[in-house]
Amino acid sequence: MNVAELILKKRDGFALVGSEIAFLISGYTAGRIPDYQMAAFCMAVFHRGMNAEETLFLTRAMLESGSVLDFSSLPGLKLDKHSTGGVGDKTSLVIAPLVAAAGAYVPMISGRGLGFTGGTLDKLETIPGFEVQLPLSRFRAVVEQVGCAMIGQTDEIAPADRKLYALRDVTATVESIPLICASIMSKKLAEGLDGLVLDVKTGAGAFMPSLQQASDLAQSLVDIGNGLGTQTVALITDMNQPLGRAVGNALEVQEAIQTLKGSGPQDVALLCEKLSARMLSLDVTATEFNRARTSIAEAIGSGRALEKFAQMVEAQGGDPRVIDNPALLPRAALQEVIESKSEGFVLGVNARAVGRASMALGAGRERVDASIDPSVGILLNKKIGDHVEKGEPLCTVFYNQAARLESVRSQLLEAFVINANRVEPPPLIKGVVE
Amino acid sequence: MNVAELILKKRDGFALVGSEIAFLISGYTAGRIPDYQMAAFCMAVFHRGMNAEETLFLTRAMLESGSVLDFSSLPGLKLDKHSTGGVGDKTSLVIAPLVAAAGAYVPMISGRGLGFTGGTLDKLETIPGFEVQLPLSRFRAVVEQVGCAMIGQTDEIAPADRKLYALRDVTATVESIPLICASIMSKKLAEGLDGLVLDVKTGAGAFMPSLQQASDLAQSLVDIGNGLGTQTVALITDMNQPLGRAVGNALEVQEAIQTLKGSGPQDVALLCEKLSARMLSLDVTATEFNRARTSIAEAIGSGRALEKFAQMVEAQGGDPRVIDNPALLPRAALQEVIESKSEGFVLGVNARAVGRASMALGAGRERVDASIDPSVGILLNKKIGDHVEKGEPLCTVFYNQAARLESVRSQLLEAFVINANRVEPPPLIKGVVE
Repeated sequence: MNVAELILKKRDGFALVGSEIAFLISGYTAGRIPDYQMAAFCMAVFHRGMNAEETLFLTRAMLESGSVLDFSSLPGLKLDKHSTGGVGDKTSLVIAPLVAAAGAYVPMISGRGLGFTGGTLDKLETIPGFEVQLPLSRFRAVVEQVGCAMIGQTDEIAPADRKLYALRDVTATVESIPLICASIMSKKLAEGLDGLVLDVKTGAGAFMPSLQQASDLAQSLVDIGNGLGTQTVALITDMNQPLGRAVGNALEVQEAIQTLKGSGPQDVALLCEKLSARMLSLDVTATEFNRARTSIAEAIGSGRALEKFAQMVEAQGGDPRVIDNPALLPRAALQEVIESKSEGFVLGVNARAVGRASMALGAGRERVDASIDPSVGILLNKKIGDHVEKGEPLCTVFYNQAARLESVRSQLLEAFVINANRVEPPPLIKGVVE
Repeated sequence: MNVAELILKKRDGFALVGSEIAFLISGYTAGRIPDYQMAAFCMAVFHRGMNAEETLFLTRAMLESGSVLDFSSLPGLKLDKHSTGGVGDKTSLVIAPLVAAAGAYVPMISGRGLGFTGGTLDKLETIPGFEVQLPLSRFRAVVEQVGCAMIGQTDEIAPADRKLYALRDVTATVESIPLICASIMSKKLAEGLDGLVLDVKTGAGAFMPSLQQASDLAQSLVDIGNGLGTQTVALITDMNQPLGRAVGNALEVQEAIQTLKGSGPQDVALLCEKLSARMLSLDVTATEFNRARTSIAEAIGSGRALEKFAQMVEAQGGDPRVIDNPALLPRAALQEVIESKSEGFVLGVNARAVGRASMALGAGRERVDASIDPSVGILLNKKIGDHVEKGEPLCTVFYNQAARLESVRSQLLEAFVINANRVEPPPLIKGVVE
């Protein structure tokens, strides 16, 4: 096969067959196909897209570029959840121990990602001592012992994706649905799962703002998962306002711990419950789903989920005392309360604007090689539907660099839309794709 | 400036400004911008195009990546011609000495190109001893002494184009109008010309089959030339049937010499005359054009054009005895006459089919690093409008590898369309763009 001819075929809008896609991915991973040809190919895919079959073959080729974990010796379901990312989304930190407490195994391999805050790994790393780069043997041992473990991508898992993502990041080819789907699913399916639940965000703060776009993305991801033999379901959930009240890495860890204690914000608790119950009842009936919800509620209520979290933290080298002493987490030096300039009901808290403010404080990264400030962030005092008095706090900014405060203050003031009339909070779950 | 952001800007269909294009090209030429980013950029340009202003800036940036020759000390016009390429186009070999014999200077820098036969350089190299890779100082000396010289692209001329073309060749980004225009014009304008005439081919054997496409390409090239200060005109000429009767490198050199002797095929002679006269009268009136035609006719009739050719061949190390002794040129070992299967008038000689046959014989190259067979080719006995008897020769194949003959024979038989009714030869010049 000739690489330039395959690029040309895609450039001109034709679909590649499985063997052609496998040739490209295996050749690229092995270094036989140079970066410049793969960059041109990715840009051609950006413009021409890939059909469902091509995307499936691409995912399979990337999955098969590395190891696929085998947890079949463990007695119980191997489950995971993946979110397309939003502002204030700390559900992974809650769900992994929660589902493990309910009796399943959660071998979660996460990314750092680009975005308004750090990724799950960045959040975990705010816990003193917590190690996210475990070798696979150690990862396996923690999963076996605790029931859940959370690590970063390793060299063994989908090396094609690592290499391709680094290339896409510098060639403006990140925002391509088939490439995104293959990247997400090749890593998740390498975990050797029985089932996967996807949380596809929609709204102002999501990668896919419109419900239609989010549904299309969800369908594509679900089709890949099921097509490659892992039972997969997607929930489409609201990301118009941030999830929960905490935005920022250490702040979100605190909120996740509160949720495991049963005292987290209502939306975080609800979403964690729904996603976890789905994970536990993927191939079964509504009755089973309700039974799963009960066992999830019990896992929280009994303290077993929190205990799993403590065990995981300890098993991965972290200090479990953070659970009862948040002062052990990184803390920003300065705080500033943003007060409402008017009285009324909160009509909107623009998740994108809050995300940008979080980024401006240093909580997120724009480039894969950037560092983040784990301590900074925003705590929302008000969310959609809340009543607010003039002068009452809308949110609190946790920051270290005074120079950044002024622009962040105006961004946050603009993020809150206050309305004279009473407002109902929006539904959190907007759809299910399976 | 951030390279990935510039790629993204073009990817999303926005126009780049001059400083952004200059940043990309100078950075790429200097090795600061890697191949993979430029490959993604080229694929984005393929899909999104460039407007006239961007194409002008791109050409200027590529031109300024290297030296621009300065022949201002020479007394007379510095002129050149460029063809977009077709089957049997050997006019450069005729026009350079012809225009030099008429008193102007022709510093012609040519390419090898991909195509049905080799490029001008490959044809010249069939002359024993002829050197096409002269250093610029030697090139300048030949131009000064003889009036014309023909060499290949050097490292000093538009190095950005050399580097970019090699990249485009392996990333399926050759067929982009703005990239093609900038590539052609950056090299031609580096010759330090007063005027440039473009021969844009249209028809079955041309890169741009339709007249509209050819006109658009011509307009884009003419706008760049004039926009960067070199008077530029394009003729749009027919390439439905091959030009002249010879297709193949050494065969075409013989036909060029015949044309310089005044005994070439009518279409080759006419096109050379029209293009040469245009070159000599670029900024003047129709009267001047007719005067230029007269001096062109005199240059042929007097033998001075042929003499210039001989001088150029000698100055570039070649054996000028080829002029009177074609046996000194490479000759194919075998010949085969293809006879007509019916009687009538030739309605068409499909230039693309003849070109493919020429390629199959080994006269052209599909990849920049391929070698060509200088001796093989096809001589057309019949062209559009000619009467042909059943069994009369349509063309003669000159070949070295018997294995290739059968497919070539059927390609050539299909290339000729014979019709019962009388047919008029098509007009050679289809339009002028200035």
